[in-house]
This record gives sequence, structure tokens and C-alpha cells, in this order.
Amino acid sequence: MTRVDGRVERGNRTRRLVLRRTVEIASVEGLEALTVGRLAAELELSKSGVFALFGSKQELQLATIREAVRIYTERVLRPAAETPPGLGRLWRLCELWLEYSRSRVFPGGCFFYGAMAEFDARTGPVHDAVVRAQRDWSAHVERTVEEARTAGELRAGTDVAQLAFELVALLETANALSVLHDEESAYGRARVAIAERLRGAAAEGVPLPQSP
Amino acid sequence: MTRVDGRVERGNRTRRLVLRRTVEIASVEGLEALTVGRLAAELELSKSGVFALFGSKQELQLATIREAVRIYTERVLRPAAETPPGLGRLWRLCELWLEYSRSRVFPGGCFFYGAMAEFDARTGPVHDAVVRAQRDWSAHVERTVEEARTAGELRAGTDVAQLAFELVALLETANALSVLHDEESAYGRARVAIAERLRGAAAEGVPLPQSP
Repeated sequence: MTRVDGRVERGNRTRRLVLRRTVEIASVEGLEALTVGRLAAELELSKSGVFALFGSKQELQLATIREAVRIYTERVLRPAAETPPGLGRLWRLCELWLEYSRSRVFPGGCFFYGAMAEFDARTGPVHDAVVRAQRDWSAHVERTVEEARTAGELRAGTDVAQLAFELVALLETANALSVLHDEESAYGRARVAIAERLRGAAAEGVPLPQSP
Repeated sequence: MTRVDGRVERGNRTRRLVLRRTVEIASVEGLEALTVGRLAAELELSKSGVFALFGSKQELQLATIREAVRIYTERVLRPAAETPPGLGRLWRLCELWLEYSRSRVFPGGCFFYGAMAEFDARTGPVHDAVVRAQRDWSAHVERTVEEARTAGELRAGTDVAQLAFELVALLETANALSVLHDEESAYGRARVAIAERLRGAAAEGVPLPQSP
């Protein structure tokens, strides 16, 4: 390895180390709590080193959102894609989401719930990145509903966007109430409601798959 | 009016003036954005005057939450209580809530949504006040569902807590998505879903009341 390669590799390692911590901090205290000085102190790095990697607080916030999307994709979207398109994949997606929230992949619960509430009424690049992440997630749920309809597993008249909205509402609220009250009953309620919604939308003779 | 009365009255006036501004700031930027210095500068008051009225940043945050509860009670809970107990009051409560969010009584949308996300994973008196406000709201919805059941307007087997959870999920998510994407379609989706849920739970022959 050349000296330059070594420096790049060290830089990447430090970047990953910093981002592992920033997604944690942001999920509990919000993206505004991310400062170069605090991270340098916590991780025993030089302030100029952290600054050289991220450039500004805003860049640090944007990189943190990208890292959260990467983790979320790996924990929820990718495993759901292993189930074939249809009602089974839709149900699996919801179950993986509830598990992602309940197991506190991020210590403050769903990363995006906090980021949304923090930046929803503001403007700027961080707001735009949060909007994009939420839009991508809603669109992903809608696509998964649409696949199930195309596969003939949902009634032909199913309102795809309406069903997707209701599923997202149940998931997000389970997360919000569970984190706020530090207890798990909201996950059970969300699961009951989602199963009922999917049974109501299922084409005749298509059963809701059992959980593994 | 004696001199002391005059001073008390002036203090109360200033207090109301400060709190009118703090609920606005907190609903957009969060409760952490409330500082005595900023408020004094914005409202052209002396820092020591604001400090004398609230004592600390935390007291200012707690007073702001109480003020938001007062406004919320006046805009949502009190007018809903004018409709007699039953399915009509439950439906009215949901409609008033959607209108409270849509009309931006607080410029950042539902005050409590933002406060919940900001303080959910923390500890301390502000967290506790937010938890209490959310619990009170959930309990209020549950009571309103229970009243409707007792009045014989919901099926006897209705799971009160489950229905309340689903209604709260639809309301809160309509607020969150509408503020984030700055558009109103989520309110329509929430209304459709709530009407469907209430029709599904209504006792035989009890119609969902029309909106005024």
C-alpha cells in the first residue's frame, strides 16, 4: 500500500467511526446536536481532522442522513426484497420495520421520525434530504403494495396510496409511542391493525402469511 | 389599581407576550431553541425581565408546554365537548384535530408532535411534561371512544384502546406528512381512513354523522 492509499484508507476509517457515532447522537438528541467540536472530543480525534473529512456542520448532518439511509436499507428494505413480490413481501416489510424500531437499531428509535420532526418546518439542504428520505420510503411502500396488487393478491380496486399511507401511519406511530413511553405495547397494536388492513385488502382466497 | 397590582398585571401581560412567541418558535425550531436572550432581543424586553418571569430555560420550556396545552384544549377538546357523547363526538374530535393541524394554530403544525420527537429519548422534567401531554391526549381519545361504546353507538366488542391508537396514528401522521411536504393530501387520506374505521366499529344502524 502506498503512502497516499494509506492516508485515504485511514480517512475512510475515521469517517465510518465518526458516522457510527453521529447517527446515534442524532437519533437521540437531533441533527442540531452534531458539532465538529463535540465529535472530536468524544472520539478523541483532532477537530481539524474531523473538519477535513466533513467540511462543515451541514455536511456532517447530510453525511449522517446518508449513513442512516444505508443502515435502514440494509436492515429493512434489503431483507424484505428476499421475499417474492406480493402480500407476503408487504407483510414482511412491515414486520421488519417494526423490528427495526423495536430493536433500536438507532438508540432513539426510527432515525427518520426524529429528523422529520426536527426539520419539517425549516428550509435548506438538510430539510430537503429529510424530505427525500421520507418520500423514498413512502414510494417504496406504495411500490410494494402495487406489486401485490399486480400479483393478484390484493383486490383489484385497492387504493394503493391510501393503503400505503395507513401502513406508514401505524408503523411510525408505534415507533413514536414506544420511544416516548419506553414500552412495547404500541408495536402489538400496530401489528394487529396492519394485519387487519392487509386481510381487508387481500384478494379472495389469499391468506395473510404467517410470521417466520 | 395599587402600584403592586399594576406591577403584577404588567408581569402577566409580559408573560403572555413571551409565551405567545415561545409556542411559535418551539413548534418550528423545537423547545431547545428557546433562550431567554433570544426572546428578550426579539420582543425588545430586558433579559433580566424575561429571566425574572421564568427563572430558567427549563422553566420557560415547561411554561411553553403548558401554554400549548391551553391553546390545544381551547381549539380541539372544548369544542368537541359541545357535541353529545357518542360516535358524533368522536368524529367531531377527529375533525377538529385535523383542522387544528391544517390551519396551523402553531406555525410548525401540531405542537406536541415536534416536542415528542425532540424529547422522546431524553430524560428530565421537560421529557416528563411531554409524556404527560401525550398520555392525556391518548386517554382523552380513549374516553371519547368508550363514551360512544357506552352510548351503544359502537359494537359491544370494540377494542377501545386499539381503536384509539389507530385514530391517533392517522391524525399524527397526517400532520407530520403535511408539514414535511407542505401540502394537504394527507389530511384527506386520514379523513377517509378514520371514517372507514368508525363505520367499521359503529353499532348496526348507527350512521357516521355528516360534517357540519
